[in-house]
Amino acid sequence: MNKQLLFVKRPKGAADASTWSLESHPIPEISEGEFLVKQHYVSLDPAMRGWMNEGKSYIAPMEIGSVMRAGSVGEVVASKHPKFQVGQYVAGTGGVQQYAVTDGKGFYPVDPNLAPLPMYIGTLGMTGMTAYFGITEVAKVKEGDTVLVSGAAGAVGSIVGQVAKIKGCKVVGIAGGADKCKYVVEELGFDACIDYKNENVATRFKEECPKGIDIYFDNVGGEILDIALTRLRLHARIVICGAISQYNNKTSIKGPSNYLSLLVNRASMTGMVVFDYADRYIEGAQILGGWMAQGKLKSREDVYEGIENFPETYNRLFSGEKNGKLVLKVIEE
Amino acid sequence: MNKQLLFVKRPKGAADASTWSLESHPIPEISEGEFLVKQHYVSLDPAMRGWMNEGKSYIAPMEIGSVMRAGSVGEVVASKHPKFQVGQYVAGTGGVQQYAVTDGKGFYPVDPNLAPLPMYIGTLGMTGMTAYFGITEVAKVKEGDTVLVSGAAGAVGSIVGQVAKIKGCKVVGIAGGADKCKYVVEELGFDACIDYKNENVATRFKEECPKGIDIYFDNVGGEILDIALTRLRLHARIVICGAISQYNNKTSIKGPSNYLSLLVNRASMTGMVVFDYADRYIEGAQILGGWMAQGKLKSREDVYEGIENFPETYNRLFSGEKNGKLVLKVIEE
Repeated sequence: MNKQLLFVKRPKGAADASTWSLESHPIPEISEGEFLVKQHYVSLDPAMRGWMNEGKSYIAPMEIGSVMRAGSVGEVVASKHPKFQVGQYVAGTGGVQQYAVTDGKGFYPVDPNLAPLPMYIGTLGMTGMTAYFGITEVAKVKEGDTVLVSGAAGAVGSIVGQVAKIKGCKVVGIAGGADKCKYVVEELGFDACIDYKNENVATRFKEECPKGIDIYFDNVGGEILDIALTRLRLHARIVICGAISQYNNKTSIKGPSNYLSLLVNRASMTGMVVFDYADRYIEGAQILGGWMAQGKLKSREDVYEGIENFPETYNRLFSGEKNGKLVLKVIEE
Repeated sequence: MNKQLLFVKRPKGAADASTWSLESHPIPEISEGEFLVKQHYVSLDPAMRGWMNEGKSYIAPMEIGSVMRAGSVGEVVASKHPKFQVGQYVAGTGGVQQYAVTDGKGFYPVDPNLAPLPMYIGTLGMTGMTAYFGITEVAKVKEGDTVLVSGAAGAVGSIVGQVAKIKGCKVVGIAGGADKCKYVVEELGFDACIDYKNENVATRFKEECPKGIDIYFDNVGGEILDIALTRLRLHARIVICGAISQYNNKTSIKGPSNYLSLLVNRASMTGMVVFDYADRYIEGAQILGGWMAQGKLKSREDVYEGIENFPETYNRLFSGEKNGKLVLKVIEE
């Protein structure tokens, strides 16, 4: 049987157990041009909350009754597709289910001997690509920049900051809690990390970035974005990668009331979606993989188990009770 | 005697008569390296409100007791400066006074035979440069773009839209009142103009820009910026030139709550300050002047008289009771 998590109710505010329904269906048959993936791991990402909303976005909203959308990695166990063979490992968007049938669109082969499978939906997957192309192409990071990163202990932020360090920047992270901040500085090598749960963010920004910031890579939005705006240097670049503090709002989100700092400092705020770099994922993965091989870049996956634990695991995205890239093992061995 | 308008009180909210004090002082003597300008016209600009605030901005705040800062144009009537001769006309930042002593910093010669003097503090001055470099360099306008411009009947907006038309764009303006909208379409040649005082802006944006906008040139901020954000096309560019709707706020300004549209549409919001293009003003003025000479670009100055009428004239910036570039004649003949 194929355990599948179906998206059954659009949440208002935070998603909860009633948002999904776990069902078991027979493992589907494949048709000509399709293959069947036995999925090992699925990716949990803050962007999921946006996919649950109705209306136009960078991707179609999820339909009620569909399998919960998610990045995934697994093994091809049946194939009538010319390019994918049984025994091959692949990553793609297989959804929160144990078996996925696909025509191959968006799937690509991965090598389990080069890196652990969860890494292919983390640092070597969309997460890493978001971080790499965001900081290099959107923020146009350059040596000597002062870079501020929110969600610094998180999946994207941790890579953004490490890449900026590799590029010769001063890097200051923002994370929730002393343990995460310690990890960010001691393990990931950021120059400093501000604990937004226990410190005065505005004061600490001034202390850590006395001359202001050249780049703010924003994963959180809300108050922290607004404070960051007060610290911009001339020609600073803000990358809008996410706004996790606002995703569960029941009312309209908080806009950055200090946005006129963009005018004063001739600065920019630019949104990004990783899909725009799809034709360069190989380049990004090779570079990040190379840095990992050289010990310059650390990747941490926080792996939970059991498809039935998806709702609880998903909530960790928003509560922050996780360490690094959040991954759920859905295969039962 | 030299009538001078002194800045005597920082306003909370809107400036009023108590913000300034009109005084008469003897016309000052000039020292070696200085010259004396008999000022004909001073420029009135929304940016003035920002200069009155304390705190860091793109320019130092005005000091209490100083002459009200303003762009100006006039005639050199005494000179101990090697580069400026008596009888020459100059533009610069002479302030709201009838005579200005300067060492020449920021002043440059203008030719009263080529264009009326008020135009040198309007279309051929900072106003025109803001519009020209904003739409060409910051917005990177290109043929076929759909361009939305707020303050479309105003000093900057009217030029922005006309330049975009010259560049081959579809141009939609936003202005307050039917008369201004009529002027924007019939005289300036915009494709359409939305009357924000009498029409539903969101509905009209959809009607006039059914496929969305590539550029929004924002002079007003507030609700209109927020609605414009909902209409962005992929890779749209928002130029933050001003936010006149927010300048007189007594509380913090309204941030654009729809800013995540930047993410969805991989769009950018970039601030600008015209001073950054100072080394290219000659280029800008020549291009705008050339278009005016060819009848492709219209310039309208709304000239009031009497330095004592500065406060009332200044208020027209915010009430909108003006037609085009607001200028005050301060010379008494």
